[in-house]
Amino acid sequence: MGSISYVNGLILAALSVLMAADGVAFPSTRGPFIEAAGLTFTLGLLLCLAAPESRGMNRLHAFLLTSSVWLTAAFAGAVPLFLWSMSPTDAFFEAMSGITTTGSTVMTGLDTTPHGILMWRAILQGVGGVGFIVTGIALLPFLRVGGMQLFRTESSELGDRELTSAARFASATLWIYLGLILACALVYRIGGMTMFEAAVHALTTLSTGGYSTSDASFGHFASPFLQWAGTAFMLAGALPFAWYIRLLSRRVIRSEQVVALLRGLVVVILALAIWRAASAGEPFGQALREVAFNVVSVVTTTGFATADYTTWGPPAVAAFFFLTFVGGCTGSTAGGVKTMRWIVLGRAIAARIRLLHTPHGLFPLQYEGRRLQADQLNGVIAYFSIFFLCLIVLTLVLALLGLDLLTSLSGALTSLTNVGPGVGEIIGPAGNFAALSDPVKWVLCFGMYLGRLEMMTVLVVLVPNFWRELA
Amino acid sequence: MGSISYVNGLILAALSVLMAADGVAFPSTRGPFIEAAGLTFTLGLLLCLAAPESRGMNRLHAFLLTSSVWLTAAFAGAVPLFLWSMSPTDAFFEAMSGITTTGSTVMTGLDTTPHGILMWRAILQGVGGVGFIVTGIALLPFLRVGGMQLFRTESSELGDRELTSAARFASATLWIYLGLILACALVYRIGGMTMFEAAVHALTTLSTGGYSTSDASFGHFASPFLQWAGTAFMLAGALPFAWYIRLLSRRVIRSEQVVALLRGLVVVILALAIWRAASAGEPFGQALREVAFNVVSVVTTTGFATADYTTWGPPAVAAFFFLTFVGGCTGSTAGGVKTMRWIVLGRAIAARIRLLHTPHGLFPLQYEGRRLQADQLNGVIAYFSIFFLCLIVLTLVLALLGLDLLTSLSGALTSLTNVGPGVGEIIGPAGNFAALSDPVKWVLCFGMYLGRLEMMTVLVVLVPNFWRELA
Repeated sequence: MGSISYVNGLILAALSVLMAADGVAFPSTRGPFIEAAGLTFTLGLLLCLAAPESRGMNRLHAFLLTSSVWLTAAFAGAVPLFLWSMSPTDAFFEAMSGITTTGSTVMTGLDTTPHGILMWRAILQGVGGVGFIVTGIALLPFLRVGGMQLFRTESSELGDRELTSAARFASATLWIYLGLILACALVYRIGGMTMFEAAVHALTTLSTGGYSTSDASFGHFASPFLQWAGTAFMLAGALPFAWYIRLLSRRVIRSEQVVALLRGLVVVILALAIWRAASAGEPFGQALREVAFNVVSVVTTTGFATADYTTWGPPAVAAFFFLTFVGGCTGSTAGGVKTMRWIVLGRAIAARIRLLHTPHGLFPLQYEGRRLQADQLNGVIAYFSIFFLCLIVLTLVLALLGLDLLTSLSGALTSLTNVGPGVGEIIGPAGNFAALSDPVKWVLCFGMYLGRLEMMTVLVVLVPNFWRELA
Repeated sequence: MGSISYVNGLILAALSVLMAADGVAFPSTRGPFIEAAGLTFTLGLLLCLAAPESRGMNRLHAFLLTSSVWLTAAFAGAVPLFLWSMSPTDAFFEAMSGITTTGSTVMTGLDTTPHGILMWRAILQGVGGVGFIVTGIALLPFLRVGGMQLFRTESSELGDRELTSAARFASATLWIYLGLILACALVYRIGGMTMFEAAVHALTTLSTGGYSTSDASFGHFASPFLQWAGTAFMLAGALPFAWYIRLLSRRVIRSEQVVALLRGLVVVILALAIWRAASAGEPFGQALREVAFNVVSVVTTTGFATADYTTWGPPAVAAFFFLTFVGGCTGSTAGGVKTMRWIVLGRAIAARIRLLHTPHGLFPLQYEGRRLQADQLNGVIAYFSIFFLCLIVLTLVLALLGLDLLTSLSGALTSLTNVGPGVGEIIGPAGNFAALSDPVKWVLCFGMYLGRLEMMTVLVVLVPNFWRELA
């Protein structure tokens, strides 16, 4: 247990440094940030000092570690927001939504909110983004959550051949992530954003988080150049970072999940753009740009919006609702179900149909050129089962708290997939989560937390047996 | 191919006899029924005579047979309705909804509709009910659709030990079905229905179809006795008929799916009744009766309603929406996902969570005391995948035809599960499918057809490869 306490302490210390930096950079909110930094640092130091000597990590410890650091980070992230002026519930919601890179917000009047607060929300998403890549590459495959053991071999092989150690792999990921954020900020600046806006939006674009500096979200910038740039960089955040490393080392470039994601996006965007141009009488170029931005925003689980697409008519509402299920690539900052799992599920179904034709045929499943093991397939299937189970339970709880069925369903879905906006008037792209009651906000926080850790990681810890075995 | 044409001819001939009987019994609609009987009989005779000599059945033939007879029956069932006065679309919708025992209706003014028509709708459901038991017991396990191979061993074992042949098993099923319908009609008559109402409702209760003689559905009869009787007999239609046979021969009575269904119903009904009594200030007895009737109606996929439960508030709407997913027992007249699959899925998830704790543990799955084979589990998983895929596609198509998201989703769901009413104003328990456009009605017809044949049976036939292999 010692190392769990120690790592949580380190997380707190790291966040306190970021709080202090935010406080130094933005004088108008210096007070709460310095205070929060002191508090968080002290707590972190205490956790590190109080940590009993570690006797190694086993699987159960790894589950507890993964589940606890995200909760710790969310609590710490809420401290400056609370000390600034927000209610405890709102501060925690905003921090959880930030660190999980969901991007649902309870804040209104963003255009006049102090820059220190806006930057802190962006920093939380930036940290959450890289945190999730590390979790997805290093921890989930080890824990064999949701079929992620598929990537176990992949990243260890990568470690052998191209990089001398896992640490170098992690640092390469971090450099690519920072490089992309810098490039994005530069492009945004060239496109007409202020330095501050460019920095905030670059952090929240690459982390596929979606916090903005304006209540109108990305729609505040009525620039076609910026919208296309945003589309490109949201997509960049949702591609696997291991694939970037391979690209840079000029090795094999083919990646099944990248190809499938891009191909699917092209089909959906073209279909919706043609429909939109025809039904609304918009020029095709404009329809294409609007559709591309908002579709990519939902699929990459970023959650920026340039328009209230829920007013486009029933087919658009249904399309965006189902696009919320898709998700980006594994090993990226994106949440949701993710392309890999849809590919595996699709192949399993196809094999099953062929099996009905030819009962004694053998139809082995492949993924990225390797044969799928039964255990990996079962992991993917379990992910889907538990995902839908969580969706049903969360929807029922939200309905019990008084939300109508569509808002309940869409709210549960958008939190579980870490997308951000839902459909319906209250939580749609033009709406805001501020109108919801406190209990509803806590349920949604739990949904975001569950979704970011691919459910299983949290559920395993919640099983009573877990604590008995751990002791 | 000979036997396929022959069996379809026999189905037409059998339906023509029922049409003639309906025409004889109800003079006011004699014309269309006698005409339809003549037409159908002639067509049936032609199909039988034109059938080439059969060279045995293989799996592909069995798929085609199963898929075609339900379509043939729906078309035949629509003929008298069309000749009476309905539009082709409405007549086909009403017949498909009847033969698949869905119970969604496009007819209004049922209270003044000629008895011959009302009886024909009930006959279609009665025939569809027994047809589905036979399909579920004999054909789907053979075709290994949706994990139904689980029941292959069960029914063949039953055949060895208790009944000398499959034919005796089928006739025992038929006698039990007819016995239950008679008992139900008797109880309904005692409870105050007219002879005609009792006959119609007995047919549509045991077949879990849900067509009524009144626009107010079962709510027309404001009798607590009748409501409890309806609850009991709907449940009777959703229990496995093989289990009745075992009960009658005084053999093992335990059935996992029966126990799970009853246990789940008790929990849900009690919870909703307590909530309803508290929130609406109703006496508990009345709330319990209303809740029990409508919950059992949706879970058994009957679709009767005594009240517009969608006005009870968001938790009730959400609960009834998700209850639509449940379904009755396999080997009964009920549609939907069915208890067996939920049990298997639940156990697979539990085993998976235990596996994450103990990576090298072995957690074999059991069902009804037997070890689950990988192939059976995969069949169940494939069912769920394809079910949700069909749900998404149908919802998108309905949204594209202009329905709002909730109505699209609920309409797709209620047709795929053969329940009948959905949620929302248009297709809710107080609504009617008459208001929908013709293309929407055809999409819903396809949904009911897909759902009744557990999707796979139809989808296999729709794969181009199928026809190449068949030829």
